[in-house]
Amino acid sequence: MLNELFTPSVQHALDIVGIFVFAISGALLAVRKNFDVFGIAVLAEVTALGGGLFRDLIIGAVPPAAFTDLGYFLTPLLAAGLVFFLHPHVERIQVAVNVFDAAGLGLFCVTGTVKAYDYGLGLTASAALGLATAVGGGVLRDVLANETPSLLRWDRDLYAVPAMVGATMIVLCIRFGTINAFTSGTAVIAAFVLRLLAMRFHWRAPRAYKRSSAAAEEGSAAT
Amino acid sequence: MLNELFTPSVQHALDIVGIFVFAISGALLAVRKNFDVFGIAVLAEVTALGGGLFRDLIIGAVPPAAFTDLGYFLTPLLAAGLVFFLHPHVERIQVAVNVFDAAGLGLFCVTGTVKAYDYGLGLTASAALGLATAVGGGVLRDVLANETPSLLRWDRDLYAVPAMVGATMIVLCIRFGTINAFTSGTAVIAAFVLRLLAMRFHWRAPRAYKRSSAAAEEGSAAT
Amino acid sequence: MLNELFTPSVQHALDIVGIFVFAISGALLAVRKNFDVFGIAVLAEVTALGGGLFRDLIIGAVPPAAFTDLGYFLTPLLAAGLVFFLHPHVERIQVAVNVFDAAGLGLFCVTGTVKAYDYGLGLTASAALGLATAVGGGVLRDVLANETPSLLRWDRDLYAVPAMVGATMIVLCIRFGTINAFTSGTAVIAAFVLRLLAMRFHWRAPRAYKRSSAAAEEGSAAT
Repeated sequence: MLNELFTPSVQHALDIVGIFVFAISGALLAVRKNFDVFGIAVLAEVTALGGGLFRDLIIGAVPPAAFTDLGYFLTPLLAAGLVFFLHPHVERIQVAVNVFDAAGLGLFCVTGTVKAYDYGLGLTASAALGLATAVGGGVLRDVLANETPSLLRWDRDLYAVPAMVGATMIVLCIRFGTINAFTSGTAVIAAFVLRLLAMRFHWRAPRAYKRSSAAAEEGSAAT
Repeated sequence: MLNELFTPSVQHALDIVGIFVFAISGALLAVRKNFDVFGIAVLAEVTALGGGLFRDLIIGAVPPAAFTDLGYFLTPLLAAGLVFFLHPHVERIQVAVNVFDAAGLGLFCVTGTVKAYDYGLGLTASAALGLATAVGGGVLRDVLANETPSLLRWDRDLYAVPAMVGATMIVLCIRFGTINAFTSGTAVIAAFVLRLLAMRFHWRAPRAYKRSSAAAEEGSAAT
Repeated sequence: MLNELFTPSVQHALDIVGIFVFAISGALLAVRKNFDVFGIAVLAEVTALGGGLFRDLIIGAVPPAAFTDLGYFLTPLLAAGLVFFLHPHVERIQVAVNVFDAAGLGLFCVTGTVKAYDYGLGLTASAALGLATAVGGGVLRDVLANETPSLLRWDRDLYAVPAMVGATMIVLCIRFGTINAFTSGTAVIAAFVLRLLAMRFHWRAPRAYKRSSAAAEEGSAAT
């Protein structure tokens, strides 16, 4: 079984860490949008669990892990509570939050791809679903907060590409029979480091051909 | 079977009432947004059936009741038709609509929790899904209408808390073996009355610590 | 089996055409919103596959066809690539895009209805789900792009009605036992032609009674 790459307890601990840091990012956006305490909790839950929920619905793993594992459900509430009381401090350590979020991205793209493959999806579909697991929560967060998803915006540092690289590494390892804890860990770290570099050097993806020049200022002003 | 708390026909009648009043609230928002007759019908359907649809997908009850029970599907169309022709009158009786919406909230948080438990979810997850059943349709309504969900906004009267109280009462009754038609009815009424009181006295939930004071006006202005 | 109305290869080819044209419309909106190349790809995928994904989750056909058929997944990426490099030309041939989109609408409302009926839904629910298959991708596209869904707006030409007509024709054919490749093709063409006529003559649906007159300008200005 691929999902025994890591021992169950290690896997579970990694999941909880990823859920926690994604929940922090959801709760912080809720504070910035001036939502009340329930809005903070809802956005924390949705950001942390939305990607995995989508994956589980697609592969038919119902009820999804988010509703069967109490730790998955309570961790975002803990994150929401921390942000509720400490948000000026959390915002000040935004760099740390970003680093953790990058770690969550790396973890989720790998575990999402592995779980999708375990449920019988093809290699390409598994990688796509691993990517969706990693970025889905953030998209739902932005949709609920009535913002244009930062995943789609050109003026944000690369976010999807690191997750795509991690997911692609995993399906290549599966394809060539070299999947194990070491190669999986390497994929997690590759996605994580790529995301850190993208933030550090403000790597961005190109916009549509010929639009990048003249339309840029006009477009961003209109948005 | 927990879902035989009420006789099937009573249960079904209560469901139809809840669906009808939620549909009215969706149709009214569509009129306010200046949508056409199909927009009114779509928003009525989504508001009325969205919460239950989400619950049924999560617990694996497919096809969801919204697509197997013709009454569930046709009731929102009736509500949309009424609002289409009578909306100035319906808006004038907004108080009555709010009372019915509170009744729908009470009913759906209880029936949603019971159905989730019947499908094997744990107590905490059942309560969470009961809450999602009650508030999910309204969130989908606001997302489709491109508004910030009123569930999340601090400047709206308490909406989630009454549903949480109702759902929590149900899982406590299940836990202690005292679930029956009487205690369930009490939970419905508790959520209903709490919501009425929240509207009457404009109870609101707190925002993040230290944000309530200075940032309040600036925040709401920026939104 | 109803889903053998067309030979599998013809059916598949028609699906791919529908997916391709819907993906073009998603990618074009992404360019207009100034999204980057990944935003274009995501919006193309969501627009093309969202309606069918929703249908498959509702009827319990998991994993959905979007994740099991590689052609379904890759076609939107091809469309996104074309729009990325050629978008000024694609916008210039907007008329052609609209014609193809109308064809996609006709195809999807028919195939969606048939698939829903094959999975055991009733006639009314099958028609509703066929409609949702045809228009769902466009709604998801607009929600992700943070726009009011054009399906709901009164100032857009009729879009739902042609799909409703096509889906209704199919369920009537099923009801009266006259479903075959010829009648199905007629339903596709009816929906297609109706949509073309709606665009040509700017047919629009009415808004709520009494709102159409005075509130019109004020309403559209406020939106």
